[in-house]
This record gives sequence, structure tokens and C-alpha cells, in this order.
Amino acid sequence: MGESSALQSILYGRGSLRLLDQRKLPLEEVYIDVKDSADGWNAIRDMVVRGAPAIAIAAALSLAVEVFDQDFTGTPAEAASFVSKKLEYLVSSRPTAVNLSDAATKLQSLVSRTAETAKDAKSIFQVFIEAAETMLVDDVADNKAIGSHGAKFLQQKLGSSKNISVLTHCNTGSLATAGYGTALGIIRALHSGGILEKAFCTETRPFNQGSRLTAFELVHDKIPATLIADSAAAALMNNGQVQAVIVGADRIAANGDTANKIGTYNLSISAKHHGVQFYVAAPVTSIDLSLPSGKEIVIEERSPKELLNSEGGLGKQVAASGISVWNPAFDVTPANLITAIITEKGVITKSDPDGAFDIKAFIEAAK
Amino acid sequence: MGESSALQSILYGRGSLRLLDQRKLPLEEVYIDVKDSADGWNAIRDMVVRGAPAIAIAAALSLAVEVFDQDFTGTPAEAASFVSKKLEYLVSSRPTAVNLSDAATKLQSLVSRTAETAKDAKSIFQVFIEAAETMLVDDVADNKAIGSHGAKFLQQKLGSSKNISVLTHCNTGSLATAGYGTALGIIRALHSGGILEKAFCTETRPFNQGSRLTAFELVHDKIPATLIADSAAAALMNNGQVQAVIVGADRIAANGDTANKIGTYNLSISAKHHGVQFYVAAPVTSIDLSLPSGKEIVIEERSPKELLNSEGGLGKQVAASGISVWNPAFDVTPANLITAIITEKGVITKSDPDGAFDIKAFIEAAK
Repeated sequence: MGESSALQSILYGRGSLRLLDQRKLPLEEVYIDVKDSADGWNAIRDMVVRGAPAIAIAAALSLAVEVFDQDFTGTPAEAASFVSKKLEYLVSSRPTAVNLSDAATKLQSLVSRTAETAKDAKSIFQVFIEAAETMLVDDVADNKAIGSHGAKFLQQKLGSSKNISVLTHCNTGSLATAGYGTALGIIRALHSGGILEKAFCTETRPFNQGSRLTAFELVHDKIPATLIADSAAAALMNNGQVQAVIVGADRIAANGDTANKIGTYNLSISAKHHGVQFYVAAPVTSIDLSLPSGKEIVIEERSPKELLNSEGGLGKQVAASGISVWNPAFDVTPANLITAIITEKGVITKSDPDGAFDIKAFIEAAK
Repeated sequence: MGESSALQSILYGRGSLRLLDQRKLPLEEVYIDVKDSADGWNAIRDMVVRGAPAIAIAAALSLAVEVFDQDFTGTPAEAASFVSKKLEYLVSSRPTAVNLSDAATKLQSLVSRTAETAKDAKSIFQVFIEAAETMLVDDVADNKAIGSHGAKFLQQKLGSSKNISVLTHCNTGSLATAGYGTALGIIRALHSGGILEKAFCTETRPFNQGSRLTAFELVHDKIPATLIADSAAAALMNNGQVQAVIVGADRIAANGDTANKIGTYNLSISAKHHGVQFYVAAPVTSIDLSLPSGKEIVIEERSPKELLNSEGGLGKQVAASGISVWNPAFDVTPANLITAIITEKGVITKSDPDGAFDIKAFIEAAK
């Protein structure tokens, strides 16, 4: 799991888990020890770790560490019930995180099935530990596949006579996933393939995930990179300084409409206006075929404080007292503004450049 | 000069000048006394006062206060030379401010012409004081004319069955002008005319002029207002929440291409995409007919610190150490994305909605 030179936010070996404390970034690079699910719960609740895949994996691994040298005297069924309850407890650290509750449900079902035939409690724990470790390995492998598919596709679409410069938004890297990253994974792959000219990252207001986290990863991995204000993106594109925008996804509907960090939609309009390609990079688990389109995605609003105070709400007051704030967490980019969706199973394209995607057909073909 | 209920940043009476200390906004509303040109110089250099028209007027008025009860024993020519040197000194407080140096040149030429026939030094000072006061009165009057033309035009274009909501960017209000404001003047006029539903203002990264100053003015004047992140503008437009964007201008070329705060171009693209009208509000002094188009406008870059540290560069480090920054102060919005340009002499429209403006013809017709 350590073969990548990319920044690692989750350091795991059997019986040991350390998480990069993202609250201290970018000023300090400090890892904290996680010895059990209680430590895991606190790390998630206190934002030591963030990003949907990273949260789910950190939660599962914290419990894997706890049960690794557990002195447990009960039956296999009791062990399964123990794991199940701890998973429920972990879900309560961030009840709205869909990846976390999905992962917990799958792991609960796995241990309860295993308990039916297992000879002892220890083997329940062993199965659970292996499943949690697989989540970590698979997420990194999926991200590397996204990176490889994406880099190949971009090179093919954009020609190879000149290196490619891209713009990304928010943080989709090692700090949001188990490692390597989705959109940032493609940037890593372009860089290690020697075809990246430069990566631009937005500040990503109001919580500054771009200037704090993405900039940190890019500097850490020595990828040529420049930070811009979100509102400078159109001027950057007009100057011809980027050939593609690559973003992550929170949720992708069956037609390809994509919910992602506020500002993504803004970038997609600007990309269209300038003839700049616009890519969404995400594992297929981000696709929700039960949603026909983005209209069905409810956009949560975040605290006004993120705009009223500095440091994304953590610092001192900046804005005028008494002003109302509209602070949507996400926006929806319609499929017609997206060039292609890059997954670990390949690149989802569309026949009509101004139309929607048939993701169901892609998923079925990829099976 | 005090008839407006709008926030006033320049409080002037003959022999007395007080400037609202904008460095303390929005947390404190403190006026500082300016007794002479040295105080004026410091106020400009230290950013007590900002905004191109406001700087020029504050500089002239600081000298007007100084010469008001000046015990000067020289000849009229010596008085003119005294004023001229002080104006040169004031220009050195912000050498790149075009309005300031233009105003100084005009005032220098006025006192030197007056000295040819004046009977004493006192009458030179008197002429200067009156000219400086006229700058203040004229700027407020021009802004009110912009507001009135703009409100009338918007109401006519957008119908009157429903009140109008608008989005503005940066600060173009009482805190950037002698009072009332340009784009914000139109918002004030819409509000006092009872046809404003709501004003939205962007944060205006990286220096937060929207959240600090525009939000302060809107709250101060009890105008219904909501602050958004710059990158939320497209989502706002997509929700149908604004019918027009109104921005100011730093410089307008002969074809209508407009240089304004970074992010303006971004907003104009998004407005076009959503069929939202896009207005530039500025006095005709912002028009530079010597520039055929925006291509000739050089964009200055500002300090990386504005993005690297919180509070627009004044607070603590937020971004990752070692990241490069591209921080252009302005961008250029092409004429084809601008619905109309609103000046104190009337509204500049165009025959082809997707074409350029003939500003020269408008200026000549307005003479």
C-alpha cells in the first residue's frame, strides 16, 4: 500500500493506524495514532480526516485495529454483533456520509453471514480485518485506474505535441480518498507520465480546500502548480492557459448530471464558453442510477460562518455584521457541459457532445 | 452634500474633512480627522480611503482644508506653486491611481491660470477650494444620475410586474466614490424606488471588498441583501434568483470592453449562459476612447499574499507553503457580453445585442 510517492493521509499496517491530521494542514504535517473505534469516531467527528471515501475507510480500519488483538471470549455470533454495533457507532460520527453508512451496511452483512459458519470469534475478526484492508487497497487501486484512464484519454483528446495544463477544483486527492485521488489522481498520472505542463487549483471558497489541501498535495508531490482565486478561472481560460478542467463528484445521476463542490457548475459554463474540455473523475460508486437527473439531488446549505469569518469560518470576523448569507455546499453541473466522466472502469463518453450520458449502458457493458 | 441617506465615507465642510477609516470596516465605523495634505497623503497610502474617485477627491479636499486658513504671505504665483507642489506630493501617495494624477494635473493648470490675473494669494486658494468642493459635489451628482438612469432602464427592460433582484461584485458604493456609488448607486435607486426585491453581493476574493464593504453598505442602508461566494453566482442565476448583474468599471475601451475587478468576466459569461442581463455602471471619465478595445488594457497582478493568507493577505497563513499564485487584479469583459453601459449622461446601448458599443458616437451625441 505504500508504493505510491503521493502524499498519504492514511498510514495503515495490520494492528496500527495513523491518520494525517488535516485540521493542522497546511501549516503542520502531523499524524495521529488511532487505536480503536473510539479514536476513529473522534477523528471523523473532529475533521482529522475528511472526504467521503477516506471517512469510510478510516472508520473501518479503526475498528480493524481494535479487533486485531482483541481478547474476545464470546461466540462467532457475539463477535459479529460486537463488530456490527461498533460500526453503527462509527456511522454516528457523521450520519450524513453516504459512503460511510453504505460501507457499514456491507461490512455488517459480511460478518453476520460469516458468523453462520465460523468456528470462532477470531475468524470473524479476521474476515472483518481483511475486508477493511481490501477497502483501502481497492480505493487506491480504483484511483490509480481512474488516473491511468484519464491521463490516456486526455492525451489522446488533446494531442501529445504539447504538454497539457489543467485546472482542478476543491480537493480530490490523497486527502479525500484512501490515496492518490480521483481528479487529482489524473493530474498525478499526467505528471508521472511526463505530459503535465502545469496544474492550476482554485482556492475553493468558502472552506479553502483548494488553497489548503490541494495546493499542499501538489507542493508535496512536486507537481508544477499555481493557485488562483475561484473567480479568476474564466480569465485563466481566456488566456489559453488550460486545456482541460478536471473535477471530482459527490454524486452522479443516471444521465451524467453531477453534484460537486459549489463552483463546479460555474467552471463548467466557463469551460464551455472557452472550448476547454471539462471532465468529471469519480469511482462508479459515486453514480446513483436511481436518480434520473440532477434535478433530484437536494443541495445542502452550510453555515453562514464560512463566509462571515476568515479561514472558512474558523478565524475572525471579516464580513459586515447583519448580512444574510447563501452558502450552498454543492451545485449541479448538467451532463451537456461535461466532456466525459472518467471512472476506474473506463471513460464514459457520449454520442452527442451537447447531450447526456447513458451511464446505465456503460455500467452494464463494463460488468 | 449631506442630503443622501446613504453611508458617507467623506464628511466635508469648508475647513474640515473627516474620512471613514475603511481599514476598520466592517467591525468599527470610525472617522479620522484630516487637517492637511500630509494627513491626506497618509490616509491614501495607509488605505483609510480607497476607490479611484474617492482617492482623488480626498486628496484634493485634504489640501483644500490645509489652505483654508493658511497664513500665506507670498504672491499669487507663489500660492499657485505651493498648491502645485502639494498636489504633486499627494500624487506620490498612490502613483498608479490615474484619477488622482488626472485630477492633480487639472487642478495645477487651474491655479496656474488663475495666478496670471489674481490679485492675491488668498484668491488662488479660494479658487482651489471651490474646485475641490466641486469635485465632491459633481461625483455624488454623477452617481445619483447613474442610479436614476440605471433604475429607470432596468425597470423598463425587466418589466414592473415583479420586483427586481440583482447581483453585484466588488465595492462600487459610498466607500469607493464621493458618495452613493455607481453600480451600488443603481441598487440604491432601485431600492428607494421600491422596485428592488433583493441585492446579492459576492464576497469578491481575494480582498473581500464585497463581504467587507458592499455588505456593510447594504446593511447600513437597510437594503435587503445576501452575500454569496463568488463561485456560487452561476448556481444563483440557474435558480432564477437574479434578473441582472450590475458591476462598476475601472476602464472602458471605445468598443465597450470593460476592465473591472477580477471575477467580473466570470460573471458576464454566466449571465450570458442564463439569459441574465449584464450592466456596467460608470461615469464617462472611466471611458478611454484612446483604447480601441480591451486588448490594449494591461492587467496588473497583485500580491500572492492576498490568497496565501486570510483576510485578503492581512491575516494568518491559510494556503500551503511553496505554492505559486496567479493573482490578477482585474479582468476584461468583452462588449458582446455586456447588455448596456450606464453613465451619468444616459445609457449606452447597442444595435446588435452580441456586438460592440459605439461609445464615441454616444459621447458626441451627449455633448
